[in-house]
Amino acid sequence: MGTPLNSSLSSTSHFKCSTWTPRRKIWRNGQMWTKTFKVRAEEQSTRLVTFVGKGGAGKTTCALMAAQYFARMGLRTCLVIQSQDPTAEFLLGHKIRNVPSPVGNDSLHAVRLESTKMLLEPLSRLKKADSRINLTQGALGEIVGEELGVLPGMDSILAIGALGQMIQFVGGSGSSTKEVERKYDVVVYDGISSEETMRMLGASERSRWYMRYLRNLAEKTDTGRLTAPSFLKLTVASLNQDSLVDSGGQTSAKIWDSADSILEKGSSAFANPLKFSCYLVMDPSNCMSVKAALRYWGCAIQAGAHVAGAFYPASALNEASNKASIEEKFCPLATAGVPLLSMDSAINWDIAMNNMDEDAKKLLTINNISSRSISPVTFDQNKKMLTLFMPGFDKSEIKLSQWRGGSELLVEAGDQRRIINLPIKMQGKVTGAKFDSGNLVITLK
Amino acid sequence: MGTPLNSSLSSTSHFKCSTWTPRRKIWRNGQMWTKTFKVRAEEQSTRLVTFVGKGGAGKTTCALMAAQYFARMGLRTCLVIQSQDPTAEFLLGHKIRNVPSPVGNDSLHAVRLESTKMLLEPLSRLKKADSRINLTQGALGEIVGEELGVLPGMDSILAIGALGQMIQFVGGSGSSTKEVERKYDVVVYDGISSEETMRMLGASERSRWYMRYLRNLAEKTDTGRLTAPSFLKLTVASLNQDSLVDSGGQTSAKIWDSADSILEKGSSAFANPLKFSCYLVMDPSNCMSVKAALRYWGCAIQAGAHVAGAFYPASALNEASNKASIEEKFCPLATAGVPLLSMDSAINWDIAMNNMDEDAKKLLTINNISSRSISPVTFDQNKKMLTLFMPGFDKSEIKLSQWRGGSELLVEAGDQRRIINLPIKMQGKVTGAKFDSGNLVITLK
Repeated sequence: MGTPLNSSLSSTSHFKCSTWTPRRKIWRNGQMWTKTFKVRAEEQSTRLVTFVGKGGAGKTTCALMAAQYFARMGLRTCLVIQSQDPTAEFLLGHKIRNVPSPVGNDSLHAVRLESTKMLLEPLSRLKKADSRINLTQGALGEIVGEELGVLPGMDSILAIGALGQMIQFVGGSGSSTKEVERKYDVVVYDGISSEETMRMLGASERSRWYMRYLRNLAEKTDTGRLTAPSFLKLTVASLNQDSLVDSGGQTSAKIWDSADSILEKGSSAFANPLKFSCYLVMDPSNCMSVKAALRYWGCAIQAGAHVAGAFYPASALNEASNKASIEEKFCPLATAGVPLLSMDSAINWDIAMNNMDEDAKKLLTINNISSRSISPVTFDQNKKMLTLFMPGFDKSEIKLSQWRGGSELLVEAGDQRRIINLPIKMQGKVTGAKFDSGNLVITLK
Repeated sequence: MGTPLNSSLSSTSHFKCSTWTPRRKIWRNGQMWTKTFKVRAEEQSTRLVTFVGKGGAGKTTCALMAAQYFARMGLRTCLVIQSQDPTAEFLLGHKIRNVPSPVGNDSLHAVRLESTKMLLEPLSRLKKADSRINLTQGALGEIVGEELGVLPGMDSILAIGALGQMIQFVGGSGSSTKEVERKYDVVVYDGISSEETMRMLGASERSRWYMRYLRNLAEKTDTGRLTAPSFLKLTVASLNQDSLVDSGGQTSAKIWDSADSILEKGSSAFANPLKFSCYLVMDPSNCMSVKAALRYWGCAIQAGAHVAGAFYPASALNEASNKASIEEKFCPLATAGVPLLSMDSAINWDIAMNNMDEDAKKLLTINNISSRSISPVTFDQNKKMLTLFMPGFDKSEIKLSQWRGGSELLVEAGDQRRIINLPIKMQGKVTGAKFDSGNLVITLK
């Protein structure tokens, strides 16, 4: 019998308004009011919501709608914008600053991530740590952060840092009785592109792979043994600035281990429907937009992320591409229409929210369980078979390989590699694979 | 009187078909036919063409049209696709492989950049160099490239490498009589997003800034002096594998200098209309799309890149957003309509090309001089005034600062920093700035 990978996740509702307590940390009229509140372990972490799809499908519109919906439900929501595209600002009817600032009501904040600003803080931490440790004899201190430019890739890496601080994927998973201060219930992230969002979703897990090699280089080479401890010390010191933790006593081995465990927690959070939801967005009137959404579904699964549903502007449905045909193409994923927002005049969000279907609202709430029944990997231990759910790909686009004996399986598709660790009973070489309606059934021996 | 920065660029036509010789290196039926041909110095380098604009504006459609047009003009053209979006493949009516392969006729090749594949080559070069130099005592050799994942930012960095090989921005600028083998006349790049394309355009110049600091760290710190020479040796050895150049004798200082000079050449190529053209794309029926195009125009200037014109689907014009209003908004940039391609059935490129306006064809040819008259920076040495052309920004979004005395001016806008080196006669502190219809006029003393 098949065992879904994420069967251990509880199906209790997370974002039911009724379970909230009034004891929170809130922003009112620009001032912060600090009140802590107790929550159950799985409610401690902020939920991250994002949207992927072809350009022009309506990702930013859906992100705005979701943020407005969550805020109106009383959830402390932060909308995070990263692009230079002026659409989000126009739809919101509000200038978006580079620090989280309230928009209209207290529940909704918005921020534009600007890499030129974001690179200042880590640099300043690094400089402070260096001035204590004196690794670079002042050379690091000479760098003027305010005149540094932004290189390719920096936007994503800095965004991961900024989102990481907001959502506390890692920090919030302590004991269930620990008091945790949490600023936001939901963070809605509108990234610079679907491709780059996919890379971000898969980054924790893949960073672990690189870190293992890096640790090897640090521990097994002369240069590594000579220099790595100083760099690790600098890194830890710059991260621990605010806390009183003394990193001096930590061994390099412990630092590598704890970095790996942080990345492991980050990685598993993206597969957890209580912590993360990625929604597909498509324009039904453009068949390429529908095809791209299917493809990104497969890509998100390859990245290791949880896909929670699909949205489309209801007014773009037509005879050839109707509700039923969309539902069929994306089955078993839940789909819902959203109202199309006109760009000709300012948006009245009260009206837009009134026009929002119950289906769409249901899809945005975390207790929608339809998506949880989809297991990206199912093991059948008796038959030594595993089934990979891979929508949006042809069989010819999927490549399987095994590099570490028979203990794991490497799946390559959509320009991303995924490693599937095989349960002990199932370890062995791949003997066959057949592709059937989005499922790749693999036989091992 | 104002002196345009790029006034030294010649206005001779580059891509006139009549100037070509039949002696070329071409691909025919999958086989490469090598024939060298002599070209003038400025014709030696391949032209890079790219498109930016809001998602859904039609960037991929324009890239396909441009590639088809160039190929039909007899230019050896390579279309470079990077996204997982299936649109390019559908429009082309051809599977796009991860190595450049002919599409229909000999002049047009297409390739999809896949980072999972692209990371193999540099890693293998590094491993080979390491096995000779023995810096990592075999630890590098243990890395299995085929099981590495793709991290955020890698797509852009690997794409820069791949495009760099294709366009030879740097290599082709030797003496005018030197025989150069050139595979492509034009490379049309359809990137993963406008934001990331901007970062790529600005990367050479900004890398130079980081490299100066890095060199400082390498030369002035104990750890740097101890380790940097080995890393430089490894880098040079892995880059020089194919050539017979012996890097052993090069001093670290020389390596840093030559890296800086390569980046400097790359950086100036993006400002050279003979080597690079960035086109804006917008959907006139969506006012946000028009606004975004204006914004990306300003962002491209901030990045230091040459913007050559703007395209829009002619069928999307309407009463409020007509040809005249678009021309006015983008003045003095040349604009042109392109036919809208239906996604409902396969594209007949013969018909699509016949429907293409003369305006659009003119805009794609390199001897269109309208865009060259736009100077992003104009100096008035007598009045000690400089004028920055900055379309798409409000005055409030532009920040000026000076960190190195009065020798340079740092301009911050659109989440990018640009350094303007002031001519000796003009050096001094900023005393005033006023913003007038897209131009920021700055007074120095």
